[in-house]
Amino acid sequence: MSADVAFAELMDYQRQTEALAQVMGRLSWDQETVMPRGAAEQRAEEMAALEGVLHARRTDPRIAEWLELAEPEDEEDEAQLRLIRRSHERATKVPGRLAQEIARVTSAAQGIWAEARAADDVAMFLPTLTEVIRLKREEAAALAVGRDRYDALVDDYEPSATAASISAIFDRMRPRLVALREAVLGAEYQPKPLSGHFGLEAQVRMARDLAATFGYDWTRGRMDMAVHPFSSGSGSDVRITMRVVEADPFNCFYSTIHEVGHAAYELGIDPDYALTPIGAGVSMGVHESQSRIYENQLGRSRAFTGWLFGRMSERFGDFGIADAEAFYATANRVQSGYIRTEADEVHYNLHIMMRFDLERGLIRGTLEPEDLEEAWNARFLEDFGVAVDRPSHGMLQDVHWSVGLFGYFPTYALGNVYAGCLMKAIREAVPDLDEQLARGDTSGATGWLRENLQRHGGLYRPHETVTRACGFEPSEEPLLDYLEAKFRGIYRL
Amino acid sequence: MSADVAFAELMDYQRQTEALAQVMGRLSWDQETVMPRGAAEQRAEEMAALEGVLHARRTDPRIAEWLELAEPEDEEDEAQLRLIRRSHERATKVPGRLAQEIARVTSAAQGIWAEARAADDVAMFLPTLTEVIRLKREEAAALAVGRDRYDALVDDYEPSATAASISAIFDRMRPRLVALREAVLGAEYQPKPLSGHFGLEAQVRMARDLAATFGYDWTRGRMDMAVHPFSSGSGSDVRITMRVVEADPFNCFYSTIHEVGHAAYELGIDPDYALTPIGAGVSMGVHESQSRIYENQLGRSRAFTGWLFGRMSERFGDFGIADAEAFYATANRVQSGYIRTEADEVHYNLHIMMRFDLERGLIRGTLEPEDLEEAWNARFLEDFGVAVDRPSHGMLQDVHWSVGLFGYFPTYALGNVYAGCLMKAIREAVPDLDEQLARGDTSGATGWLRENLQRHGGLYRPHETVTRACGFEPSEEPLLDYLEAKFRGIYRL
Repeated sequence: MSADVAFAELMDYQRQTEALAQVMGRLSWDQETVMPRGAAEQRAEEMAALEGVLHARRTDPRIAEWLELAEPEDEEDEAQLRLIRRSHERATKVPGRLAQEIARVTSAAQGIWAEARAADDVAMFLPTLTEVIRLKREEAAALAVGRDRYDALVDDYEPSATAASISAIFDRMRPRLVALREAVLGAEYQPKPLSGHFGLEAQVRMARDLAATFGYDWTRGRMDMAVHPFSSGSGSDVRITMRVVEADPFNCFYSTIHEVGHAAYELGIDPDYALTPIGAGVSMGVHESQSRIYENQLGRSRAFTGWLFGRMSERFGDFGIADAEAFYATANRVQSGYIRTEADEVHYNLHIMMRFDLERGLIRGTLEPEDLEEAWNARFLEDFGVAVDRPSHGMLQDVHWSVGLFGYFPTYALGNVYAGCLMKAIREAVPDLDEQLARGDTSGATGWLRENLQRHGGLYRPHETVTRACGFEPSEEPLLDYLEAKFRGIYRL
Repeated sequence: MSADVAFAELMDYQRQTEALAQVMGRLSWDQETVMPRGAAEQRAEEMAALEGVLHARRTDPRIAEWLELAEPEDEEDEAQLRLIRRSHERATKVPGRLAQEIARVTSAAQGIWAEARAADDVAMFLPTLTEVIRLKREEAAALAVGRDRYDALVDDYEPSATAASISAIFDRMRPRLVALREAVLGAEYQPKPLSGHFGLEAQVRMARDLAATFGYDWTRGRMDMAVHPFSSGSGSDVRITMRVVEADPFNCFYSTIHEVGHAAYELGIDPDYALTPIGAGVSMGVHESQSRIYENQLGRSRAFTGWLFGRMSERFGDFGIADAEAFYATANRVQSGYIRTEADEVHYNLHIMMRFDLERGLIRGTLEPEDLEEAWNARFLEDFGVAVDRPSHGMLQDVHWSVGLFGYFPTYALGNVYAGCLMKAIREAVPDLDEQLARGDTSGATGWLRENLQRHGGLYRPHETVTRACGFEPSEEPLLDYLEAKFRGIYRL
């Protein structure tokens, strides 16, 4: 077989694997949005069967033969081969039985977790969580091969990141974040919280308008209600979900903008890459940089909140906020809350650091599932100065561990770090950004991101993707500078 | 390998194939209800990839080995092995490339057909239809192996039925149907058509109530809007769709009851059979017997329409029909219309006979796609006495041929024939049926169907399934007797 033929056969084979992976994503979307509740068990079997197919394809010995023979002709080919090799090597380390078992157990676990959270009942969830952790420890051990087990899982979401590299960043971030938090919470001026009732239908309409404002492509996506906002899919079918809390429209609006950021990344990738390994976001950290920059650096900016204040006033009338300046402060109000997804920009990374430490313990075996609640609550009190009042405000709040996402949380903080760098670059590239945002025009910023980052998909490695876009080596500095300037300004410090 | 081990391994393997087949069905559901329109091309690739997986599984040589060794212990095992053998033999006759090509082309064809129908443009659809027919002729030739090619396709939907056996039934039905049609259309008394405006939301609410009235299990299903009403899925996830025409609420209500009949069959099957070959409706003809008996023999009966008249009067006020007797006639009004799905019980089978003849010609090669429109229109004029005024009223009206369903249409008429037999049996088994239906209680009839037919799934062969339920050999006689009595009564003949 010639190198050309090997490459063509491999890519053809891979294309079908990618298509089947999209089908798997669609099943998850379906489960979270429209699936009848009585279908949970059957769905777990369906997903396990499809996972079995995907695993068998990814471990097919022909892949190694093709990889042996194929020669890249350009950097795109090179990236494709690199990602296929990576996926093949990873898959061959995990027994098919284990991969299927994880798919089956985590599909079912999600529903059990949701019920336990609704009932505020840790005991209801514990057997399932214990089973998930047992399987993930087994998977981590299979993947690690001499390396650290937690690192082996992190690598799935953020290739080449490690617990050590993440710890180093977190160690530099924590003191400045804690100092900022203390300053802000002790400030004389405190923004007014939003209060009132914001009807469901009006929120949904506004959320759809916000999605459009941030450039969401409705011909290749849709928006549905779900318990958790998420974005799902690659290529030409990238869907987002939202939820509505009638007392808190920011919940719906900012999670929508966040998910549009994720979706925009997938939808912004060069269409020639569709259904190939480089046709998806390169890592979860880079993904989160897009969602966070849409949500925070752009969506919670003084300029954009000014525009949003106008639109909300038109739709909801007077809701007790005097002017755009006060609204900006309200939209960025810092408070010590229980829930990560509702956390302000100052607290958010502190939530992540806590989960990072706990989940490392769970995977390495230094923390057992039955001790998690106690460990969570002790750590939360230490880090946030508040005692957790109920499990749904504590260890039951996040879906991640139930679906087997260990090693995923730190990518959220990496995303924030990257978003800080990218925003610095955009500020330089788009001098009139604030004028644009003030009139609800996000195209300068989102266009820059599409052109400089999103369109490349998986062409470059994660760190390289961000470095190329920014023109400088990423670090936590720009994020921390931005946070200090922003919140010292808002809190008049 | 022992017989026991072979059977267990085969069933385990098959269970995963069945789960993946459910995933394929879910992709179709998604495509018809919620898929963004820009995703059509990618979806075609996804479905082709999954079809490739299913085909490879169904042709796996291990199946023949397992079948060789496995010994059935009871009639359930026997049925499982028979159906697996059948599926394996069928799949091995069709090259994988062809199976994938059909999946890809028909997934894309559906959208093209829908656009062509909306634009009333045959030329827009003809290249696609020609391609579908080319592929289906190829598939039929591969399947036939000496038999008639059309029979080979019919066998997919109605095992052991043939063009000859169907023709024999149609030949006996046609004269009595034509005579009844002439008598009814020439009658002095003519029921009033329904007129007025029936709001979308009120129709949707009523349709949901009707679904519940016929016992639809909402914990294992859901109801969405779609261009075409259909039922989708087996086991614990069986979804239905509806459409609303504001001038014609019967369209929504009766198609809903029809789809509930299909769904009730799947949901009524013994849960122990889930994700096995006998865990789905045994044939399309038997399936259609359930949907038609729910819709017509029950839903359009004098007793049930009396109840429905009451409910509709409560919800829509006075809509110009004097009383329950007149409403019964209106709900059963006979008229020579273009559209099969809107046809009354007298005309319906005449539509099927026409499609049966045309599609046999298309598969056997005696009719070419480019001559179809002329052939359709000539035949319609001959059979219905009306000239087709536009393609969407003619050859573009049905989705079937675009998605490759050739040999499927005759099962609709077989379903009617079976429904006639089953109704005769129910009348004997449930003496107070009309009293029950008159108070909106369908449980006597639907419970009888579940107990005597639905729960068996694919345990018995199609014809045997109906014979066992009825207690007599099925024929077209009960249907024709029922139609003549009903319509001579309504038209006062």
